Amino acid sequence: MRLVLYSGGVDSTTALLWSLQTQETHALLFVYPSRHNAQELAHARAICEAHRIVYHTIDASALFAGFASDLLTPNAQSSTIPHGQYDANALSHLVVPFRNGIFLSIASGFAQSLGASKVVLANHAGDHPIYPDCSRAFIDSMGAAIVSGTGGAVQLVSPFCELDKAAIVRLGITLNIDYAQTYSCYEGGAKHCNQCPTCLESLEAFRQNGLVIER
Amino acid sequence: MRLVLYSGGVDSTTALLWSLQTQETHALLFVYPSRHNAQELAHARAICEAHRIVYHTIDASALFAGFASDLLTPNAQSSTIPHGQYDANALSHLVVPFRNGIFLSIASGFAQSLGASKVVLANHAGDHPIYPDCSRAFIDSMGAAIVSGTGGAVQLVSPFCELDKAAIVRLGITLNIDYAQTYSCYEGGAKHCNQCPTCLESLEAFRQNGLVIER
Repeated sequence: MRLVLYSGGVDSTTALLWSLQTQETHALLFVYPSRHNAQELAHARAICEAHRIVYHTIDASALFAGFASDLLTPNAQSSTIPHGQYDANALSHLVVPFRNGIFLSIASGFAQSLGASKVVLANHAGDHPIYPDCSRAFIDSMGAAIVSGTGGAVQLVSPFCELDKAAIVRLGITLNIDYAQTYSCYEGGAKHCNQCPTCLESLEAFRQNGLVIER
Repeated sequence: MRLVLYSGGVDSTTALLWSLQTQETHALLFVYPSRHNAQELAHARAICEAHRIVYHTIDASALFAGFASDLLTPNAQSSTIPHGQYDANALSHLVVPFRNGIFLSIASGFAQSLGASKVVLANHAGDHPIYPDCSRAFIDSMGAAIVSGTGGAVQLVSPFCELDKAAIVRLGITLNIDYAQTYSCYEGGAKHCNQCPTCLESLEAFRQNGLVIER
């Protein structure tokens, strides 16, 4: 069985529905105090329910109390999200240190308890260098740590590590994914802002595939 | 600055006081629902306060709700702790899957926020093979994941990875550590049971160093 770390966004929705084609797959959702978490989770749950996918939710909200990131509350209330394309200087204050390491570790322990032999992370080649915990080097060493630290019970799968977002959407089209149901926006509002780096990146990937998506 | 993962037991107390000899060092305590956590934390806090060591506490109690381990509540209430030396068959139900991976990942993100460049784990060569997340293979790959996933900001230090518990106590004696103040017992009672594998292992390490410790 595979366990997909699932945020309800373009990348992890594609990973989830890709995985379901070939193996029993559950989704794992994290509650944590980012400004967009409530919207993410609402969309993630709705997509799981529409596809009858079993999902689990882990409450990580208390973990990040001492973390320095303007993506997290309470800082999130007073900080502003830069608009426009990814810019390392403008965005570095939004990085949550080692977030993928933390979520993957918890997912791996939970997977072992659940009897799932694979955890799936939908990081991709287009993830900006300000996120070092999306890099190939991180994935390879974290994957080795998960194998050795679970006594071989769990492996990390990163199916999109060499793909960019346009290629992920191309795969998703073959899986009949309705990307209008997904959510990924730094602002965390009920509607996508269509101005933050995450929105612009998704719009560009849709455009490259000839899709017009209303989110 | 170093950040030591600290449980108040023999190994991590030695690591904490060893680290303090050469560098500014803070302790990191985790609240989580193991049967011995309350006693561990009380002793860890008391030792930090006695040595004027700054400590941080992260609440990881919600994370483990779906984990299968008889060390964790609610199972902990009804399960029994085997007495006698380590026995893989008797103890495997007490393993918390990937616990060191989870705690190290959280510690690494927190360290980056705090400006600490090292996280210190007091795993050692005598840790029983039922704990794969104490092995050299795990430490090496997890260390590489932490470096790459924090963009080089944080490194993992495992000072006792090649030492057994008797050698750790030998080091501690040179640091004038009072091991009577430490706590590490699977039972989690106010007094050490002196019958569980952890108690027996500590007693043997004290004996090999000619120490008689009342805990």
